Amino acid sequence: MNFIPGWVRNYQKAWLSGDIVAGVIVTVMLIPQSLAYALLTGLPPEVGLYASILPIIAYAMLGSSMTLAVGPVAVASLMTASALQPLAAAGSPDYVALAMLLSLLSGGMLLLFGGLRLGFLAHFLSHPVISGFISGSAVLIAVGQVKHLLGVKAGGNDVFDTVVQLIHAAPGTNLVTLGIGAGSVLFLMLARKSLSPWLVRLGASPRLADIASKLAPMLAVMVSTALVAAMRWDQTAGVSIVGTVPQGLPQLGLPAVSMASVGSLWLPALLISLVGFVESVSVAQSLALKRQQRIQPNRELLGLGAANLASALSGGFPVTGGFARSVVNFAAGANTPLAGVISAVLMGVVIAALTGLFHYLPHAVLAATIIVAVVSLIDVETLRDAWHYDKADAMALLATAGGVIAFGVEVGILMGVALSLGTLVWRSSHPHIAVVGRVPGTEHFRNVTRHTVNTEPGLIAVRVDESLYFANSDALLDRVEELVAAQPDTRHVLLVCSAINQIDTTALGVLTDLERSLAQRGAALLLSEVKGPVLDRLQGTELGQRLEGRIFLSTHAAFEYARQAGSMVGRYGDPAAAI
Amino acid sequence: MNFIPGWVRNYQKAWLSGDIVAGVIVTVMLIPQSLAYALLTGLPPEVGLYASILPIIAYAMLGSSMTLAVGPVAVASLMTASALQPLAAAGSPDYVALAMLLSLLSGGMLLLFGGLRLGFLAHFLSHPVISGFISGSAVLIAVGQVKHLLGVKAGGNDVFDTVVQLIHAAPGTNLVTLGIGAGSVLFLMLARKSLSPWLVRLGASPRLADIASKLAPMLAVMVSTALVAAMRWDQTAGVSIVGTVPQGLPQLGLPAVSMASVGSLWLPALLISLVGFVESVSVAQSLALKRQQRIQPNRELLGLGAANLASALSGGFPVTGGFARSVVNFAAGANTPLAGVISAVLMGVVIAALTGLFHYLPHAVLAATIIVAVVSLIDVETLRDAWHYDKADAMALLATAGGVIAFGVEVGILMGVALSLGTLVWRSSHPHIAVVGRVPGTEHFRNVTRHTVNTEPGLIAVRVDESLYFANSDALLDRVEELVAAQPDTRHVLLVCSAINQIDTTALGVLTDLERSLAQRGAALLLSEVKGPVLDRLQGTELGQRLEGRIFLSTHAAFEYARQAGSMVGRYGDPAAAI
Repeated sequence: MNFIPGWVRNYQKAWLSGDIVAGVIVTVMLIPQSLAYALLTGLPPEVGLYASILPIIAYAMLGSSMTLAVGPVAVASLMTASALQPLAAAGSPDYVALAMLLSLLSGGMLLLFGGLRLGFLAHFLSHPVISGFISGSAVLIAVGQVKHLLGVKAGGNDVFDTVVQLIHAAPGTNLVTLGIGAGSVLFLMLARKSLSPWLVRLGASPRLADIASKLAPMLAVMVSTALVAAMRWDQTAGVSIVGTVPQGLPQLGLPAVSMASVGSLWLPALLISLVGFVESVSVAQSLALKRQQRIQPNRELLGLGAANLASALSGGFPVTGGFARSVVNFAAGANTPLAGVISAVLMGVVIAALTGLFHYLPHAVLAATIIVAVVSLIDVETLRDAWHYDKADAMALLATAGGVIAFGVEVGILMGVALSLGTLVWRSSHPHIAVVGRVPGTEHFRNVTRHTVNTEPGLIAVRVDESLYFANSDALLDRVEELVAAQPDTRHVLLVCSAINQIDTTALGVLTDLERSLAQRGAALLLSEVKGPVLDRLQGTELGQRLEGRIFLSTHAAFEYARQAGSMVGRYGDPAAAI
Repeated sequence: MNFIPGWVRNYQKAWLSGDIVAGVIVTVMLIPQSLAYALLTGLPPEVGLYASILPIIAYAMLGSSMTLAVGPVAVASLMTASALQPLAAAGSPDYVALAMLLSLLSGGMLLLFGGLRLGFLAHFLSHPVISGFISGSAVLIAVGQVKHLLGVKAGGNDVFDTVVQLIHAAPGTNLVTLGIGAGSVLFLMLARKSLSPWLVRLGASPRLADIASKLAPMLAVMVSTALVAAMRWDQTAGVSIVGTVPQGLPQLGLPAVSMASVGSLWLPALLISLVGFVESVSVAQSLALKRQQRIQPNRELLGLGAANLASALSGGFPVTGGFARSVVNFAAGANTPLAGVISAVLMGVVIAALTGLFHYLPHAVLAATIIVAVVSLIDVETLRDAWHYDKADAMALLATAGGVIAFGVEVGILMGVALSLGTLVWRSSHPHIAVVGRVPGTEHFRNVTRHTVNTEPGLIAVRVDESLYFANSDALLDRVEELVAAQPDTRHVLLVCSAINQIDTTALGVLTDLERSLAQRGAALLLSEVKGPVLDRLQGTELGQRLEGRIFLSTHAAFEYARQAGSMVGRYGDPAAAI
């Protein structure tokens, strides 16, 4: 493995301008977002900034996407908050240390999975379940930020609890805060909806207009900060502000590790890693497809793992590839991860010299940015499509979203994983099994219920359209038993193995039992069209020995064998079976 | 649904003698086993007897197996002990109440799963994982019983802990207890190994000899009880005995239910239900196969659920179908669940009138029965077979067994489920994908790497040998991207759908993305051999609309289309592609 990434070795001058422009634009988005997601997580604002420097550089060295923008994101922040809140007081030094530890664990797990090439782990979550999870989290996040808009204290682990607390706290609303917050929400929603078309009408190119509209949060931050600073609303009206943000680059160091903390954080770390990885890969892949580039899931694991390790070592919290910033990075013309590196350097300048500018930044504006950002994540389209296409998927989506909203983010994601896997097991435990017969005058064999075919008396020929393994072998057994029970004069049961790519140990045992039980009833099991690798493995087994002479290359040969065996015992009499 | 079971309605006189003999023999096995498993669980002896009356009758009403013997079993007892020990002192009234609650929860879950027809849940566990789990549990149980053989106090949650404690306690060994215990172990092992052949040599029929050898535990119980009672070893030598077992039928009543207990017991209840169900169904199925009978998994869920509910209501603990007693029941000639009902009635007589006989029964003999019974559950054969046949399965078996031994029964089974599902996801996330070409002069299409076939320039034809869903659709996408990247002049990508029985929402999204990304590069996606149900569903989707005119009945038609489209743009030039 070469330690200098490919994009550095092959860097072309023509890429530079795009990377610089994208790097600058993403930085302007990243500043308010990193502060906002630190607020969402219950961490001091500088932690958000820390998480936006080294992790980006670490990802640039190891990741495979050219345009993914790594850093703090909404859903991982929510999951972090939900993991840490039972363990320490939000914002306390313990809380910060636990956030670093969580990031360390998550980084270690991702690197381990990458080293073990476990990129396939992403497949534990189906798209509807992820969509439901994100929509549910978005609702949870948005409702959780309303307190900052009102300037009151309220909090709960689920949506209902939070709403009740908000209603109780509502009489204490700070009207100036509400004005700033609600004003920002309105402005940001308007900017998202109308700024881009309006700029186009003024003569801007659609792409430029689109990018400019993404910078509205920074504008809201600047205007509101200036306003609060000028009017001193923090003192005269009690508006909650960010306050002093420590200046200076993050210190490198390991977080405190205790066995007790690891014990409570490993499961959240695993879930954050899994969800972050899946989200990140799907964003990176959809962008890569547009430019005919490739994403390598195992390298993404390494890249994200390194990013989280870097975050842990530099005082940050769990990071992953974010949807909105990646899309803007791509649209703004980023060609390589250099765009990210530029953005990391700029963030370094901000934290080394400019944190004083955030002193008067009101929390309400950050909450407004969060709310507007996450509301756009609520994904009704996938639900609608799934509802029309596959009700089971739609139900899984709704259950996951409902689980997150009603029971919180961990129970929700676990419900989602369980539902994804439950569906997988359910579907694969119901393989398609067809009884086949000969298409008259040919050596082709088709489903008897869909084609006009000839069957052989005393022979039941079934084709399973899936590999046989523990989840579906009983279904085959049941079906064959059913068929044999319905035709007690069966002398041969032929299993057409054309679609069987693998037979696991459980299925091998089931087939062995089936062969033995058929033999006891005077019927023989035949196999046809067994694929090479499957046949090789069968050879050494008890079943392979018992089946000797009864494994046929073609279904035709097996039919011929059954016909001759049948005629030898005088059972051949159906003219329809003649070719 | 008819409330009188089929076997009652159609009962034939000829079945009666078999049922009576089997009922009596099973009872003779059940008495020592029910006392022993109560000891293993840490419950008073009468609880084992209670769990052997009503549950059998409840199963007889609802279950589908004719020969399954339901009641206390070793593994479920171990799992029960492991769930209850952190919550209450073994043997205390709280402990008994929690055991009833666990049985209630397990019964409720099983009935719920049965009502929802979730019999497929059994497929969450592969055969090697179950085998590893049982072997690991057997080791854990056997080691845990050694203290009773030595007459010392020792206990731990895992094997190493227990062994260390035993070594520390060994100097306090009670030699009389050890004599009774070790003598019983020797006698029982000898009986298991040699009694049956010896009886055959004496002229007994093999079946009779086999059954008689299963009655050795009862003999050991009778002889040792008589010995202890005669010598008063409980007082003169400090031998631990069962003591007074309350006489009288169990009182019906609901266990105390508190939210806190339900919170700590739901997961163990789920695991006990799952493991018990899987074990029970596999025993019932292997017996049913021998007589060409059928097992209905969903009815098994109802039967076992009712049995556990009955156990909870009559002061018992979790029960399921046991391996050893079921095999004896079958061999002794049981024809219907009447054998079980007879055995329940006999157990009722024992507990109503004969519990005084157990007073002097030494614990060491019960421990010896348990040890000899579970040692025979250690399944080296499956490990050896799996090792030769499929290393992945063998590793899953070892990991599960090791997990149980090192971390206890709950962690072990969770590791097993995770490994089973991990293997399933891993395997199905690597579907077999073949690039196909035309067998010269035919309308057949085969894998290019295994057959001499002709391909069409500008056309990539791939066949996926599995349904497309969330766990494998990315693999298809990756493969197609790889192929297209290697042949940049590709104009058509044909997906041969002959093996695709289902496309879930996630896979539909992936195909839609693929079609769009190919279109951007000037290549068209074609489908052929799409199955009816898959096609029907595609119609209403965006992908279906975009693919209009490009879905072909046969691969041949799709190849022709690609050839003509290719020739129209002047790209046709490879004579090998001509039919």
